[in-house]
Amino acid sequence: MDLCATLPFPQICHLGSKPVEERSLPSTLLFKSRSSSFNRIQTHCQKMYVPGFGEASPEKKAAYQLHKFFTYIAVRIISAQIQSYNREEYQDLTEFLSKNSLNDGDEFCAKLMRESPRHKSLALRILEVRSAYCKKDFEWDNLRRVASKLMDESNTRLMREYVVETTTATPVESEK
Amino acid sequence: MDLCATLPFPQICHLGSKPVEERSLPSTLLFKSRSSSFNRIQTHCQKMYVPGFGEASPEKKAAYQLHKFFTYIAVRIISAQIQSYNREEYQDLTEFLSKNSLNDGDEFCAKLMRESPRHKSLALRILEVRSAYCKKDFEWDNLRRVASKLMDESNTRLMREYVVETTTATPVESEK
Repeated sequence: MDLCATLPFPQICHLGSKPVEERSLPSTLLFKSRSSSFNRIQTHCQKMYVPGFGEASPEKKAAYQLHKFFTYIAVRIISAQIQSYNREEYQDLTEFLSKNSLNDGDEFCAKLMRESPRHKSLALRILEVRSAYCKKDFEWDNLRRVASKLMDESNTRLMREYVVETTTATPVESEK
Repeated sequence: MDLCATLPFPQICHLGSKPVEERSLPSTLLFKSRSSSFNRIQTHCQKMYVPGFGEASPEKKAAYQLHKFFTYIAVRIISAQIQSYNREEYQDLTEFLSKNSLNDGDEFCAKLMRESPRHKSLALRILEVRSAYCKKDFEWDNLRRVASKLMDESNTRLMREYVVETTTATPVESEK
C-alpha cells in the first residue's frame, strides 16, 4: 500500500496574519531565542523565529502528527498479528476500520473501546502497542538522519533540475 | 493560526492486503528484527513487525511528512522576515501562495523557482532556510520527549474517560 500524503496546513495563504506588534519589529529582531539565559543566547541559541504557532511549538505540532502516525502503525501491527490466528478479532477490526476513519487516532480508539467488550480489548491493545512502538521501536535517530538526508537530496535535485532546464535551453537558442 | 491536521492514510481499510507468504506465518513469527546480527537479535533488537511499508520504513514515511512540514515552516519564517522590510517580495510570495498549494513542498519550490527571477531568489531562500531549520533549529530530542509525553497523556485520558463513563453509569443503575 502506498501512503498518499496531504499536508495538514490548508490555511497557508493566511501567512500574513501576524499580531500588529510583530509587524512593526525591524527585520533584525525577527530571530527569537527560545532560551531564557542571556549567555546561552549569545553563544548557542539564536534560532529563527517561526510565527503563527501560538503557545505550541513546531515540535509539538510535529509530535501531534507522529502521535496519529503511531496509532496507524499500531493498528497495522495488530491487524497483521491477529490476521492468522484470530480471524474473529481480525474481522471485527477490519469491519470497524471500514466504517471509522483513522484520521484522529484517539477518537478512533475511544469509539472502538465503546463498540463491544471484544472491541474494547482490541482498543486497549492498540493503546499499548502504540505506546511501546513510540518509546521502544521507533528509531528516532534514524528519523533525524533520514530527514536530513532527504533535505539535502531534495534541495540538490531541485537546483540541478533547474540548472539543467535553463542550460539545455540556451544552446538551442544560440544555435539558431 | 491553528493548524488543522489530516492523517495521510486514506487507504487504511485495506490493512489486510499482505503478501500471501506472510499470511501463512505463525503468529510467533510476526516479530521482525531489523538487525542483521544474530546476537543483537537475541539480546536487544526484537522489534514489532510493521507490515505494508514495502521497501520504505515507518521512519522514512515520517521523514517525508516532516520534510513537507519543514518547507511549510521555512515559508512562514521567510514570510515573517520579509513582511516588514521587503513588501515587494512579501507581495510576490503571498500571491504565489494563494495560487499554489504547499501540500508538496518540493513541487511548490520548483514552481516558484520558474515563476520569475525575483521568485527564484525566494525559492532558493526557502531551500536554504528549510535545510538550516531541519539541521540546526528543529529540536529533535524535544520532539521525541513531547511525542512520548503526548502518548502517555492520551492513553491515560482515553482509559480514564472510559472508566468514568462506565462507573458513573453503574450507581444510577443500582439506585433504581
